[in-house]
This record gives sequence, C-alpha cells and structure tokens, in this order.
Amino acid sequence: MTPRLVPGEDTFLCEPQRSLVLDAGFRFHRGDVIAPFTIVYETFGELSPARDNAILVCHALSPGPHAAGKYAPDDAKPGWWDGMIGYGKGIDLARWFVVCVNFPGSPWGTTGPRSIDPATERPYGSRYPWISVEDMVESQRLVADHLGIARWRCVTGSSLGGMAAMMWPVRHPERTGGLLVMAAAAAVPVTGVGWHLIGRKLIESDPAFGGGDYYDAADTLRGLQLARMVGHMTYLSGPALEAKFGRRRRGGTRQFEVDSYLEYQGRKFADSYDANSYIRGQAAMDEMDLDEQYGSLDAAFARYSGKALLVSFDTDWLFPPDEVARLSAGMRRAGADAVHLAISTPNGHDAFLVDYPLIVPPVREFLDSL
Amino acid sequence: MTPRLVPGEDTFLCEPQRSLVLDAGFRFHRGDVIAPFTIVYETFGELSPARDNAILVCHALSPGPHAAGKYAPDDAKPGWWDGMIGYGKGIDLARWFVVCVNFPGSPWGTTGPRSIDPATERPYGSRYPWISVEDMVESQRLVADHLGIARWRCVTGSSLGGMAAMMWPVRHPERTGGLLVMAAAAAVPVTGVGWHLIGRKLIESDPAFGGGDYYDAADTLRGLQLARMVGHMTYLSGPALEAKFGRRRRGGTRQFEVDSYLEYQGRKFADSYDANSYIRGQAAMDEMDLDEQYGSLDAAFARYSGKALLVSFDTDWLFPPDEVARLSAGMRRAGADAVHLAISTPNGHDAFLVDYPLIVPPVREFLDSL
Repeated sequence: MTPRLVPGEDTFLCEPQRSLVLDAGFRFHRGDVIAPFTIVYETFGELSPARDNAILVCHALSPGPHAAGKYAPDDAKPGWWDGMIGYGKGIDLARWFVVCVNFPGSPWGTTGPRSIDPATERPYGSRYPWISVEDMVESQRLVADHLGIARWRCVTGSSLGGMAAMMWPVRHPERTGGLLVMAAAAAVPVTGVGWHLIGRKLIESDPAFGGGDYYDAADTLRGLQLARMVGHMTYLSGPALEAKFGRRRRGGTRQFEVDSYLEYQGRKFADSYDANSYIRGQAAMDEMDLDEQYGSLDAAFARYSGKALLVSFDTDWLFPPDEVARLSAGMRRAGADAVHLAISTPNGHDAFLVDYPLIVPPVREFLDSL
Repeated sequence: MTPRLVPGEDTFLCEPQRSLVLDAGFRFHRGDVIAPFTIVYETFGELSPARDNAILVCHALSPGPHAAGKYAPDDAKPGWWDGMIGYGKGIDLARWFVVCVNFPGSPWGTTGPRSIDPATERPYGSRYPWISVEDMVESQRLVADHLGIARWRCVTGSSLGGMAAMMWPVRHPERTGGLLVMAAAAAVPVTGVGWHLIGRKLIESDPAFGGGDYYDAADTLRGLQLARMVGHMTYLSGPALEAKFGRRRRGGTRQFEVDSYLEYQGRKFADSYDANSYIRGQAAMDEMDLDEQYGSLDAAFARYSGKALLVSFDTDWLFPPDEVARLSAGMRRAGADAVHLAISTPNGHDAFLVDYPLIVPPVREFLDSL
C-alpha cells in the first residue's frame, strides 16, 4: 500500500478510527462490568502478512488514539506523536504497523464516564468505575486479539502511557517483543502523587462538579481548568518556564505571560476533556506501583527476558532519572536486557513531545535491534 | 536585664506584642491611605544605650511578628524562628536587640483585610489595598523611628521576608548596616510565579470567596486550604517529600500519607490565616522585581556598599541557587560586599526553618563581622 502523504507537510493521511464493540461488555480489573462497551482504536501503516511488525503505542492521560497523521489534509494539526510516528520517522510506517487504543475511562471515544448509559439514557458520570492501568492493558489485549496480533514487536508509551506499556512485560511477557518507555517509572514518585492529588481535589472541590454528575452544567468546570494548570506546571521545568515566559508581562498589561498561558491551556483543556476521565486516569497512574503490587521489581518482571529501553529526562519533575535508573536495575536483575538512556534537556516531562532530535535516533536504533 | 529562660526548654520568655498606632493613618506605596492604622511588632533582647545593636527580622508570608520565645511557659510552641533567635543562638539576644514588625496586609495584628473598618464596622475585606514589599519596609521604618533606631546593624529575612530585607539597602542604604537574606532573590522566578498565580486563582475561584467579602461565611475557605496545599508542595522538595512520606499509605487505608499531610496543613492554615491577606502577600512577592523597578540590580543597589550574606538552598524550587548567584553578582557590581553561600540540603525552600545546624554558624559569623 502506498502511503498517502499530505502535500507540503511532513505528515500523512491516516485511516479513520475503528471500533471494537463488546456486546458482552468490558470487565474492569476491580470487578465492574459495563455492557455493551466500545473500544476505539487507530492503526497506522500496514500489518505484515506474518503479523509480526506491530507496535503498540499507549497514549498518556490527555491524548487519545489519534497518535499520528491527519484524517484530512486541512486538519488543524496531526496526531499527538506525529513527530515520532510516520513514513521515514522514528517509528517508520514503511516498516511498522502501529496500533493505538483509547483506554477505558478516557473521553476520546471508548465508552467513558461521559458516554450515555443505554439503560438510563444519561451519562455514566459518577457511576463509571475507577479505572486501573490493568484496564488499559486489557483493552489493548482485546484489540490485539481482534487484529490477530499474537505478539507485539514492541510496546511503547510515555508518561501514563509508559506505565501502561510497562505493564505488558509484567502481565503478558510472551506477547511483548520489546519495551520502550519514556518519562515513566514503575510508580509515580511522591512529588507527582502530591501534585496529582491536589489536581483531583481542585476538581472535586468545585461545587459544580456535583460528585461527578455535572453534565447538565452550562459551562466547563473551573476546577478542571485549575487542575490542568497544575498539570501544565508539572509537565514543564524551571528552565522551560524561563525560556518560554520568564517574568515577562503581556504587552501593555501587568499580566504575567505565564498567567495568560495557564489560563489559555486550562480553558482549552476543560472545553474538550472530561473531569471524570481526568480524575480516573490520574488516580490509575498514582495507584500503579509494581513494587507494591508484585512485592518487588524483580518479581514484577520475572517472566520477561526481552529488551527494554527506558528513557528519562533530567528536568522531569514527575519521573526523575534516579527513579528510572532504579526501574532499569530491577528489570536487569529480573533477567531483562534493560538499558536506561538518561537524556539531558530543559524541556521537563514533556520532552517526549518536544525533543524529537534527541529521542528519534535512539528509538529507531532500538526498534532495529528487536 | 537578665534573660528569663523557660525551664527545661531551649527558649525564653518574650515581651508581649506592642502596637504603634498611627492616628493619621498609613499611606500605602500605591497611594491608598487607611486611618487610623495600627502596626504590631515584637522586640527581643535589649536595645543598647547607643541604640546600635538592633537587628530587623522581616517575617515571611505566613508567620507574624512573634519570631522567637514564648509569651508564657506553657505556650504550645515558641516563635517561628526560635531555632535562630535566642540567648546563645545564631542571633544571640545576649548581644542583639531584635525587632520583628507585622507587615500591613498580614492577618496577625497590624491593621489588615479582616480588621474592622471603624467607618463601616465591617471588615475592610475587598476594599483593603493591594500591598507591596515597599509597604512592608515602610511599616518597619516607622517602627524604627518610633524606637529611635537610626540604623539597623543588620536587616534579615527569608522567603518573602528576605525580599523585604533586600529592599532596605535599596531604599534606605544609610540605615542598613548589613543584609542577611535566605531563600529569596530580587524577584520570584517564573516557576514560583506560576505556582503563586495558581494559588491565588484557587482562592478567587472559590464561590465562597465572594470577591474578598466572605467574613460572614460559616466555614473556612476551601480555596485557601487548596492554595496552602500548593504552597506546601513548593516549600518542600523531591528529596524532602521522599523522606517524609514516599508512597506510604496511612495505616490500614489506601490514603497516601502525603494526602493526609496536605489536607491537615491546608485545614490548619485556613482555620487561622486570612485569604485576603494570602493573595495580597503573595501578589506583593510576585510584583517585586528589582531589575524591572530600577532598571538593573546594579542600579537598585547603587547606594549600598555594606556587607551582604545571601544564602541559597540547592533544592529550593522557588529560589534556585542560580538566581541568588545572579543577585550576588549584581550587588557586587554595585559595590556591595556580597557573598553567596550555596547550601546543599534536601529540605527545599523551608530549609531556613529546618536546617539550623547548617545556617546558624554562618549567621553568627556574619553578624560578628558587621
């Protein structure tokens, strides 16, 4: 199949989203079942006849399954990891078939808290289960089975997506050909937990939140805007904030540029994202803890002997390099061929969305080695 | 005068608070006047006959003028800098006379937003002026004049108090014998501005805040609790959070210990502090910018040729050592005898309240040198 490139741009035309409808429903890790249940996913590139060139990309908290490309040439922008995934890019679609599954609880298509419950004809809202990273992996497994992919050549992701990716060699080592993780660790260190908790409190303390049943409200939730501002601060870094804004004011006013930026980002996010999804996704991130769940990292990765590339960024406030080094050491003790690549960048946690010149070459090399 | 020590404790009995009542009122830097106006302050130790042993201690955002000692032996705890100020301590009251003035806008005694306006018999609330660091210095100058102190042997402070201290050699160089600043700089770098802005938004977005006129509300403001939680995160550091809490849960529950800590601190603070004071004090901190106000650090400190000791803490998220080094270099270019002492500690911004073994010796040595 010839790739359909977008003329004059470094991107391509992707396929429409697809849906996997589970009439019998989806069973969440903690026991709840929602039926029927729809899982939305996208694929990029072409699955080889041997079905052995598939790479699973796990998305983070805020993005969805639209990982790369444009649906139409005049889309405002391409998918969220278009700098990495594409023809001739780090994850080269001339060679690899990429799958990105929208996780349960997200607002981007898969049945989520703001989806309509056919039994009540109202959004699930507060009745939607509290999700776990295991649910993300289970939704991906169902899509893999549906597509006939017995084994991923590689599972990859960053941030919450990196934590989901990491769960594959733990739960399905035989289906995991390689692991590539950025800006993530086996658990969120306490600094991130603290900021996440504050973000959730901001949403839950907004009187308009109504315990999670706010879908009749006229406006978006201020609490979600504020939580996103907290999130944005943690995704950046001191040097990135200095470079982007410093103490500059908006022209002719006393308003700090960083204030204007935070308000804009908060508003934009709250206009499209869903507060119930936000608190559930972030809580799932905070609750994952491979040491706690399996007793040790050695035990968690005991059945995985494949390759792993773990990328950290030295200015990442959420996942400092020390924590990634500890993960890498644990995987090696367990018998995996794990390498920790510590990248120095001023761009903080968000470096995986920004520093393509730094991350594309090691990704390409790692995939070549699998 | 023999010091009255508290038996069995490393502290002393201090004098009651004193008040300076300005019948003609206090003129704020931006032009507003409140009359009458009361400035509350405390003194510790004894002023020498020559009135040349006085040290001004500028308090930070949340504390008040009760800098050291106990009013009575059974007080729950001594003043906020009791580890530094006392008989035989870093600021040795056997030798020095210490003055701490409660700044205008604070809720701790000086006429502030929650004080009753005699004209309306209601709290000033939203009508209280937005304060500046210059107002803090002006209130301190009035107390100095009242006490007959022509020149401080040293002006000192940390965090917002350090910024106020720094304003003395800028505005009153002839009255400033020495400058000792910790965990502060000539302006708050953008990371701190971002967190402060979010804190203020949390208060102002709380519907119960009512634009600043919330004194009839039945409960404390959740917005102030949340803002304090954000503040507490920025006062700590990654290593301090790891050491204090890590990912530990409260015994028998799934609640993270850091969650319990943040809720406790937020509640405790909001039960006593005032939201209007909080947003005003923090805004004053963010608005101070000696480069912006004077054109350059060299220009700001042009009239000061005394000594300065500037202490930074390497894990301080708000005032990183680089920023303090820049301040020190600017002061030296202006002709001051400034030294930057960069202390390595896991305790973040709060180190000035914690790391007495690290900070007492250089403080003592610096005061000896004046």
